[in-house]
Amino acid sequence: MSAITPQRLESLFRPRSVALVGAANKSLFSQLAYGNLVEFGFADRTWLVNRRGADTHGRSTVRSCAEIDEQVDVAFLMVPQAGMHDALADAAAAGILNAVVLSSGYGEAGEAGRRAEAELVAHADALGMVLLGPNHLGFANLTAGVPVTSIMGLPRAAGPVALLSQSGASSGAMVDFATTMGVGLSLMVTLGNEAMITAGHVLDFLVDDPDTRAVAIFMETVRDPAAFARAARRAGAAGKPVVVLKAGSSELAARTAAAHTGALVGDDRTIDAVFRDLGVIRVDSIEDMLITAGTAAHLGRLDRAGVGVVSISGGACDIVADRAADLGMPLPALAGTTCEALAGIMPDYGAVQNPLDVTGAAVIDPTLFTRAIQAVSEDPSIGVVAVVNSLPWQDDGQPYVVQPLVDAIGSGMGTAACPSVYVNQVLQPITARTRAVLDAGGVPYAIPGLRQAVVALRHVGWWSDATRPRATDGAGAAPISGPVSTPPAGERAGAWSETAARRMLAAAGIPVVPGRVVTSADEAARAAADLGCPVALKIVSPDILHKSDVGGVRLDVRGEEAVRAAYAQIVDAAGRVDGARIEGVLVSPMRTGGVELLVGVARDPQWGPILAVALGGILVEVLGDPALAPLPVTPDRARALLAELPGAAVLRGVRGATPADLEALAAVVARIGDLAAALGDDLESLEVNPLRVDGPTIEALDAVVTWRTA
Amino acid sequence: MSAITPQRLESLFRPRSVALVGAANKSLFSQLAYGNLVEFGFADRTWLVNRRGADTHGRSTVRSCAEIDEQVDVAFLMVPQAGMHDALADAAAAGILNAVVLSSGYGEAGEAGRRAEAELVAHADALGMVLLGPNHLGFANLTAGVPVTSIMGLPRAAGPVALLSQSGASSGAMVDFATTMGVGLSLMVTLGNEAMITAGHVLDFLVDDPDTRAVAIFMETVRDPAAFARAARRAGAAGKPVVVLKAGSSELAARTAAAHTGALVGDDRTIDAVFRDLGVIRVDSIEDMLITAGTAAHLGRLDRAGVGVVSISGGACDIVADRAADLGMPLPALAGTTCEALAGIMPDYGAVQNPLDVTGAAVIDPTLFTRAIQAVSEDPSIGVVAVVNSLPWQDDGQPYVVQPLVDAIGSGMGTAACPSVYVNQVLQPITARTRAVLDAGGVPYAIPGLRQAVVALRHVGWWSDATRPRATDGAGAAPISGPVSTPPAGERAGAWSETAARRMLAAAGIPVVPGRVVTSADEAARAAADLGCPVALKIVSPDILHKSDVGGVRLDVRGEEAVRAAYAQIVDAAGRVDGARIEGVLVSPMRTGGVELLVGVARDPQWGPILAVALGGILVEVLGDPALAPLPVTPDRARALLAELPGAAVLRGVRGATPADLEALAAVVARIGDLAAALGDDLESLEVNPLRVDGPTIEALDAVVTWRTA
Repeated sequence: MSAITPQRLESLFRPRSVALVGAANKSLFSQLAYGNLVEFGFADRTWLVNRRGADTHGRSTVRSCAEIDEQVDVAFLMVPQAGMHDALADAAAAGILNAVVLSSGYGEAGEAGRRAEAELVAHADALGMVLLGPNHLGFANLTAGVPVTSIMGLPRAAGPVALLSQSGASSGAMVDFATTMGVGLSLMVTLGNEAMITAGHVLDFLVDDPDTRAVAIFMETVRDPAAFARAARRAGAAGKPVVVLKAGSSELAARTAAAHTGALVGDDRTIDAVFRDLGVIRVDSIEDMLITAGTAAHLGRLDRAGVGVVSISGGACDIVADRAADLGMPLPALAGTTCEALAGIMPDYGAVQNPLDVTGAAVIDPTLFTRAIQAVSEDPSIGVVAVVNSLPWQDDGQPYVVQPLVDAIGSGMGTAACPSVYVNQVLQPITARTRAVLDAGGVPYAIPGLRQAVVALRHVGWWSDATRPRATDGAGAAPISGPVSTPPAGERAGAWSETAARRMLAAAGIPVVPGRVVTSADEAARAAADLGCPVALKIVSPDILHKSDVGGVRLDVRGEEAVRAAYAQIVDAAGRVDGARIEGVLVSPMRTGGVELLVGVARDPQWGPILAVALGGILVEVLGDPALAPLPVTPDRARALLAELPGAAVLRGVRGATPADLEALAAVVARIGDLAAALGDDLESLEVNPLRVDGPTIEALDAVVTWRTA
Repeated sequence: MSAITPQRLESLFRPRSVALVGAANKSLFSQLAYGNLVEFGFADRTWLVNRRGADTHGRSTVRSCAEIDEQVDVAFLMVPQAGMHDALADAAAAGILNAVVLSSGYGEAGEAGRRAEAELVAHADALGMVLLGPNHLGFANLTAGVPVTSIMGLPRAAGPVALLSQSGASSGAMVDFATTMGVGLSLMVTLGNEAMITAGHVLDFLVDDPDTRAVAIFMETVRDPAAFARAARRAGAAGKPVVVLKAGSSELAARTAAAHTGALVGDDRTIDAVFRDLGVIRVDSIEDMLITAGTAAHLGRLDRAGVGVVSISGGACDIVADRAADLGMPLPALAGTTCEALAGIMPDYGAVQNPLDVTGAAVIDPTLFTRAIQAVSEDPSIGVVAVVNSLPWQDDGQPYVVQPLVDAIGSGMGTAACPSVYVNQVLQPITARTRAVLDAGGVPYAIPGLRQAVVALRHVGWWSDATRPRATDGAGAAPISGPVSTPPAGERAGAWSETAARRMLAAAGIPVVPGRVVTSADEAARAAADLGCPVALKIVSPDILHKSDVGGVRLDVRGEEAVRAAYAQIVDAAGRVDGARIEGVLVSPMRTGGVELLVGVARDPQWGPILAVALGGILVEVLGDPALAPLPVTPDRARALLAELPGAAVLRGVRGATPADLEALAAVVARIGDLAAALGDDLESLEVNPLRVDGPTIEALDAVVTWRTA
């Protein structure tokens, strides 16, 4: 397939003219699409193609694209599946390079549909066309004023947010909500089945689009993970936040989405980990998606994530503080100098803190707002000032009674030392009336609703940090030094015995508990004496992965006689496993106490190798989910993973236990990831379980390695 | 103080006439209050009182309430603090029984303010008046059309939701949001400092108010917990849901709210537990509060909490399923009969499940919606059908293009076998245009937004179950039988030794590990022999609460000599504690394995005795917070508490451990609560720690009891 580059998509998303193929009076889709083109003044660059050449939507039509005597960039096809190949060929013959295929019955419609879709793609590719859809509702370039869509209610004004949606049926509501809340759109694309052009391709195009400052995406599946990841990283580097509402976090929705998109939905916790790694903001409602994207487009990258709040309502301050604590929005304590400045501004009975309640005194003297905003904006830990107040939305024809407050807020914002944003107390429309009140006060943007503001500002702050270009000065936690030694390619097959796995770990610089493979009771006793009792004895066999299940493990063995007896019992038990090659018995010092971790790398079918860290032993069953991250994982990232584990407190030492050396532990976790990365596509999975941590001591006690080649 | 009964509040909240005391042209509060009264057509029942008798707001005034020649029910006072006592006396002399005090500088303004507030209350009480406020913005009876408030933008139409707010500054935004979202208000009350009339009193009034079907409350503190609890229970019994946005869940907000209300904010987890016990719905945003209250008022009590979802958008289905999983809204699988019925209705490619996507086929045949709603409503596990679709809000003067869909939905709702509600895909206003579209389709109510709908329906379902009158047929888990024996009142003082605590627990029917108090090494050895080694030895002294800290505990002692030695060491160690009375040494069989719990009852300053259950040992430090409930706690409630513990999996048996007998454990936990309840106000705290559970065996291993009398 020819490469779908941003350049290639130019003529699709910024067409000079459009052919509506399959235009028909009785089709609601055709009516709506043509109505949009007329509404946007694009009628004279629109051609209607009707197989019978019948007048449609009150104007004449052509039977074939070949009859159009100008260069057409996009064919918007709403023809039945049976006629689709001919329609595409007709368009291609007329030099049309781009197809927008509304028709359904393809990948979403079972096995036959998937076959039809593959044929459609092959056909388009052979014709040199790129294809948006099928099974969608088109797109609208609102900046250029070109609607190629059957969605109703498109806004006439454009803005900085691009909206992509895999759901056609919900995209109208999304556009409506964005418009209602004052979030202007640059481009709106319904993605449909993404047979050729996927979300990643459109995102890639938007990174270079000067009219787009943030991107909102509703998706049920990431159809081309590599393209999406590449584009997402480019967006982050370009300072364009990407906000995704990814459905399928529940098992029910994942199953449903898989059924009706015919695609992998992806393990939701892996998606979380990957999005975080990519700097993609994940939200959980349409409202959060669009308000966060609007806020992000307005603010851009913040220098700091700390939010300073200035409000006229104490109740609003409390709600913001509560939600900030729930949702993780940083509300830094104000610096001494800021407090001093505010003490000179605030009335006696007002508390100087963040969030700051300027009190009803601001109604009498609105400059209180102005001065408070300025003072808070100068605080060294504040990256954005959120100013909470009310706004009107319905027009009563009267001047707004508390316009002086808005004016005073605008003045403060205009001279603030950091970015700022107005926050309405509740989630209400930003109408022309609202806009007029804001404009009069010189306020550029308002977030509707306290909870929404906390969600949006928390996300923008996180994104600012997550995608900030970093000086690569080698700062941060130290990794384990030296190159990662890996086994020769010829040995990478099947499942490995513990000793082979131990050797590989040790060679890669990962600390492993001492041990000796012995082949007689005498050697076992000698090893125990050398290593120091008590010891653990484990069978060594590439054919026995679950050693305990066959009686191949004896723990906490004390005394020479007991060691000899244990050796004999283990060999005897293993001997009864049909066809198992016995390499010997591993004798290791018995470890007790400390904390057991599980550190593994497994291959996700969409996203490749993912590192997992979890507390082990009984805690893994009590605490559940591991922390995940795609490779590579730096020691700093590993440390963050450890910190986010439920039950991380045990690593900090509870009940007088020695705290784990988190720096060293993070370095070992990162090194396990490095080893897996170095093994590349050969590796199926690598699991160190347990990795034991006892204060400064870190040791792999056991490991399982499986390879993709049998 | 005279009782503030619902009857007493009748003349306050349904006044026949109002005196605006302190009316002044230059006061914005006076302007707004008078403007409201005029707007609502109440001008001819309004009297303006101005000290100088100056014409105000364009009409004549009186200097004293005594000059008014009709019965006035409410004096709305906006006079400076210095003149407040005279103004109240003047109003009382004129026979006005109710005061609404807007003025500030009272309880919210430090020590002097608190004194002034106490004097204000005493004065009003002496005059036989009841008083709303001070430091608030009044109230509005929207059903009766009487606004006694300086809040702007009151709606002219009334509805079934009463709104109470401790925040005056945010109440305008709340009223605005309710109106915007089609949530009609019956009564709006700003509570201010609640010097006399508290939220509980108003709630009690509303239980009897025929025009109110649900109550929304924003509060930072529950000022009269007993009154609030009583009214909340009455509301639940009357089928009126109470939805509370209680600020102060974060430490920061709790501190701030305490400072600016001058009242206890309450431990937030205790508030959670108490609200749950009272059947009070707790929400975390203004939007959730009002939309949930509106939904609850529309639906009333559901027969079942299960929600059936019917939608035209697959994407919306996914979002609902995801949020339902997050937020705990039950989406039951459909019964076989329902699936069969739907299979006959749905197009071939549509999946029959809940949530149900009727697919774009419904655009062609809207009766698909009608029939699907009917089928789902007949499912035995569905208590309410939520129908997801879009709605317009701006009026373009054209008929709504997809009105047939709304009509078809209305038809389905009209003949549904259970309650139903329309859900708009996004949070948009319910305007006159929206209302017209809904009315034309016969749809009574719409929830704006998918996430909001999940929040609201989950809460309404929970509330329906939590407050449902129950047949008292003795079903449910069996309690420990027999009366709770308690120690004589004379002994209830100070802190008790472990043996005294053990005796009390055992006498109350709570299983306690065997043990014998010994006073010699010989007796200790004999006890160990009788009880079976290994044993634990612990010092018994009412003066030594932290026994381990002084060397007063020896665990896992094996063999006669070791027991004798341990006895001697413990007595020796305890002898070195100054003034400690030594009653002996407790010898008990050593217990290992199983799961340790902490079960305690402590007195909350606002809410009285609260039972706490947590996992003990190392897990308490890893897993954190206990589950809480106010007394009494039934075995069923105890079992629910155990189930909600983070880490509850260990009780179900992990790694091959025997599962705990949860029925028996719940009975013991409940019995500990019963004992604490029987001890009443004498008890300061009772803590069984650990309560050991090992399969069917449940034993208190240690306990601490402290009394309120020293």
